[in-house]
Formats: sequence, C-alpha cells, structure tokens
Amino acid sequence: MRTTIIGLGLIGGSIAIDLRKAGVATHVVGVDKNVDHTARALELGLVDEVRSLEEAVSQSDLVIIAIPVSAIQAVLGEVLEHLPASATVIDTGSTKGSICKAVAGHPKRTQFVAAHPLAGTENSGPDAALAGLFANKTNIVCEKDRSDESALAVAERVFEALKMQTIYMDPVEHDKHVAYVSHLSHVSAFLLGLTVLDIEKDEKHIFNLAGSGFASTVRLAKSSPEMWAPIFEQNAEYLNQALLEYIMHLQRFQYHLMKRDVKALHKIMTDANRIRGVLEGIDIKQKKDQLVENKTP
Amino acid sequence: MRTTIIGLGLIGGSIAIDLRKAGVATHVVGVDKNVDHTARALELGLVDEVRSLEEAVSQSDLVIIAIPVSAIQAVLGEVLEHLPASATVIDTGSTKGSICKAVAGHPKRTQFVAAHPLAGTENSGPDAALAGLFANKTNIVCEKDRSDESALAVAERVFEALKMQTIYMDPVEHDKHVAYVSHLSHVSAFLLGLTVLDIEKDEKHIFNLAGSGFASTVRLAKSSPEMWAPIFEQNAEYLNQALLEYIMHLQRFQYHLMKRDVKALHKIMTDANRIRGVLEGIDIKQKKDQLVENKTP
Repeated sequence: MRTTIIGLGLIGGSIAIDLRKAGVATHVVGVDKNVDHTARALELGLVDEVRSLEEAVSQSDLVIIAIPVSAIQAVLGEVLEHLPASATVIDTGSTKGSICKAVAGHPKRTQFVAAHPLAGTENSGPDAALAGLFANKTNIVCEKDRSDESALAVAERVFEALKMQTIYMDPVEHDKHVAYVSHLSHVSAFLLGLTVLDIEKDEKHIFNLAGSGFASTVRLAKSSPEMWAPIFEQNAEYLNQALLEYIMHLQRFQYHLMKRDVKALHKIMTDANRIRGVLEGIDIKQKKDQLVENKTP
Repeated sequence: MRTTIIGLGLIGGSIAIDLRKAGVATHVVGVDKNVDHTARALELGLVDEVRSLEEAVSQSDLVIIAIPVSAIQAVLGEVLEHLPASATVIDTGSTKGSICKAVAGHPKRTQFVAAHPLAGTENSGPDAALAGLFANKTNIVCEKDRSDESALAVAERVFEALKMQTIYMDPVEHDKHVAYVSHLSHVSAFLLGLTVLDIEKDEKHIFNLAGSGFASTVRLAKSSPEMWAPIFEQNAEYLNQALLEYIMHLQRFQYHLMKRDVKALHKIMTDANRIRGVLEGIDIKQKKDQLVENKTP
C-alpha cells in the first residue's frame, strides 16, 4: 500500500519502520510541519519522500496520523477532504472522545478508524523511532461500527504488522480508563520529579540517594510536554477526577502519618500490594505473547 | 570475621551472601524471631547456624542489624550489652535520626556504625536475598566521628565487600533527603496503585491499558508494609513536609488543568523534564562504576 505518515516522531517513525518491514507499506511518504523532522526522517530512511499533506494524501491507500491530539481534529478534516474513495485513514491519538465526536457527521467517516496504540517511550522525535515498539502491546479501536469493513480490514493488517492485540471500546470509556491508568501515572511522575527538584536544589543529593526505586517511579517525568499538554487538556474532565481521588488518597495517608497510626498506614499499603497480582498478570501475559510469537514459524 | 546477621530477609540475606563471597565473613550466624525465616535461611545456605541473639553476639567480631527500623533501637541496646569489646555492630536502617539519638550516650557507642545501604527490591524474606544487590549503590554513614577507628575500618571492609560507595551525612540531613528522594517515591507509588485499583474494580482494564509506563511508575507499590510502615512513622516529620509539597504541586497542576491553561501545564512539565539530566547522570555514574569494576583484575 502507498502509505502516508503524518507526524514523523517516535510513534509515526516507529510505525513506518514496522509497516515497511512487514511489507504492508510499499512506499512511504512523510508529512511533517517540522522541517528538521522531515530532513531527519529522510536521512534515517524512515520515509522514501516528503510531500505536502494534499499531494501525499491524494495518492495514498493508507494514511496514518501520528501528531499531538490537539492537532488531530483539524488535520483529520484536511486528510478526509483529499482522501481517495478507496483509501483508509487511521489516527493514533491518546484521547478518543473529542476526535470521534468531531468527525461523527463527516460523509467520509467510514474511511476513518479511530485507534490508540498503547506504546511509547519517554523519548521523542524521529531519532526516537524504534522497530518493534508496539510488539505485544494493546491497541484500542473506538466506534468500530462507524468504520466500513474495508477500512477495518486495512487497520487489522496495520496492527497485525505492529504485532499488537486490538480491543474495542466506547470512546468515552476509553478516555476514562486511560485517564486513570496512563494519564494519572504521567502526572504523578511529572510532579514527583518537580517536587524532588524543588527541594533538592543541590542535585548532588538526588544522585546519591536515588537508589531505592526513585528512578523507576519518576521515569515518565522525562516525557514530552508537547505531546502530553494537549492530551491532558483533551482528557481534562476524567483526569481531574483521577487526580482528585489520588490527592484524596495521599491526604488520607498523610492524616494517618501525622497521627502516627502505623496500623492504618500498614492497612493502606497492604491494600496497595494487590497491584502485585495485576503486574504479575501483565508480565505473564507479555511472556506468553512472546512465547507464541517465537513459536510462529 | 565471625559474623552475626540479625534479620534474615532481603537485606540481611543479601549481605550474608556478599560478605561470605568476599571472605569478610568466615562464619555466619543467623538471628531472627521468625522461625520460617531462620529455617529457610539455613536451607538456602545464607547462614551456617542459627542462635539466640545473646549466644550469637557474644561470640562475634561483627554484627549486622537488618530488621525493620521500629525494632532497631531495642535490638541495638541488647546487642551492645552482649558485644565483645573488640567487636563492631552496624545497622542498616532507612532512618537514622532517632537511632543515633537513642544510642548517643551509650558507653559502647564507639563500637557502633550507623549506616544506611541504599539498595533493595520490592521483594522480601530470605528467598528475596540476592548476590550483588548492593553493587555500585550508595551507602550512607552517619555520625562518623562517634564511631572509633577500628569500627570504621570494619565498616569500610564490609561496604567494600558489598561494592558500595560510602558517603557521610548528618543523621537529620539524611532523614530529610531520603524523605524526599526515596520515601516520597514509595508513598506516591503505593497510593497511585491504590487509586487505580479503587476505580478499576474490573481489573481487566488495568491489564489492557498498562502499556504506557504505568508498571514502572507503580512498581514500588509492591513493597513490604512491614518494612515501610515503621520507616514512615520514624520519618513522619520530613515525609509529611515532602507530601505537603507533592500535594501542593499536584493541586497547582489540577488548577491549571481545570482552567484548560495548556501553557501553564506545558511549563510545569518542561520544568519537571530537568529530571532527565539527573537520571542520565545516575546512569552514567553506574555505567562508569561498572566499567571500573570490570577493569579491576
């Protein structure tokens, strides 16, 4: 398929690598406002050529949109305008409610598949692109019924090439669950990083004391503000709810701490320990998937 | 040296392995109230024999205390009572202020080295003991001037055998800095885990959506309540201060989120991104240390 990738960062670049490797993309055209990114993507061989959005889209079988969520709605409108009747467009945005709502009445809605491949690293830009970034991860497709069969078949080929498992969710449910599981983790890490930087003006102490799990807990604080600010804005209602609950839990812990109520602190931590079962489940699932994958001839 | 390890869990067990390997401990006696732990430590070969505290200590050159911080003060008193005049006792507690204070006027204070080797995993018990757990990590010794030269020389041999870098700090400074860098990370992870478990009654969603860094951010929520409840209690003042700042940062973020002030959110995240430099510094330091170590014949 002649493929256009709009947005040549970590996600777009990594998709380009895997789609080409799997033979799904036979020719890859890159579109990006950032001329440093287009130049670098060409240099790295992520794309075969760089074109304007209109030129690229009008000659494509497949268009992937991998840009910050704040820009997706406008760009998706432009893409649909120039998209050939037999072609498919897939987005990769981390929020789905407002994108699905914006495109709901569009005459070409059926050519669009609303997707969220859940993968990433804390790095960004074309140089961060990685082969196999998505392998054994979850992809979420929303409003499956509003895409036509041929578009869904193309999406299936794409996410199989990325070695992802696709699940289907309502866009509102999607936004609520990612607020708690993914977005809240990011906020918690960003502000943990900031709190520690604030107090430890002399960063030497962080270097010396960071042994006990600090690095792992704060890792997401390295993530890109360009990517995350619009995600948080678009998912503000659910993220606010998640933050309220998180802060309430922290304050309850703090209350028992100030009362020196060790029993209550112990109980809270024992309850939190249940996350062990969930994390082990994720480990087992990933190992099983890798096993299945290795056995595939 | 005839060595007694009091507390045969992750820390005590791992120290036993490394001290024996390095030839520092020629005979290891285990002491633990938990009979399952003593039996398992014998089975695993972590210790040569199990004795009562009095029997073990009175025949030792070196005693290591590796038990929850709430029990260290009482046990340290007992150890000093039975400790031969030429022997050394070292603790491994994660808080240092109250322990140093409690032992300040003791006639055998000079035989004691107040230490905090900063290492661990989220697992506990003798089965969690690991060779090399402490390698390239930081050890903190407090009130160096209150230990005599021979005790400090023994401690130096111990922490060199564990391949740790020792730095020296005032106990109050120690407690303040670990509250921010280590203890706050644990609290943040425990309550992130609890918040997500609370909302996601159907744990299936956590499994499916945990791709984006959730597992790494929440990892410390698996830690032992038995170990951490007393640490938090002993360091309640500084931890409370750290929690207040963390909650304040979260609420400021939430305020800008509700105002949809993307610029302010962006600024906060950009500030938090400075943690990248710190984390890279830690990576470089660890790699350099490993390089030096590999070059050592």
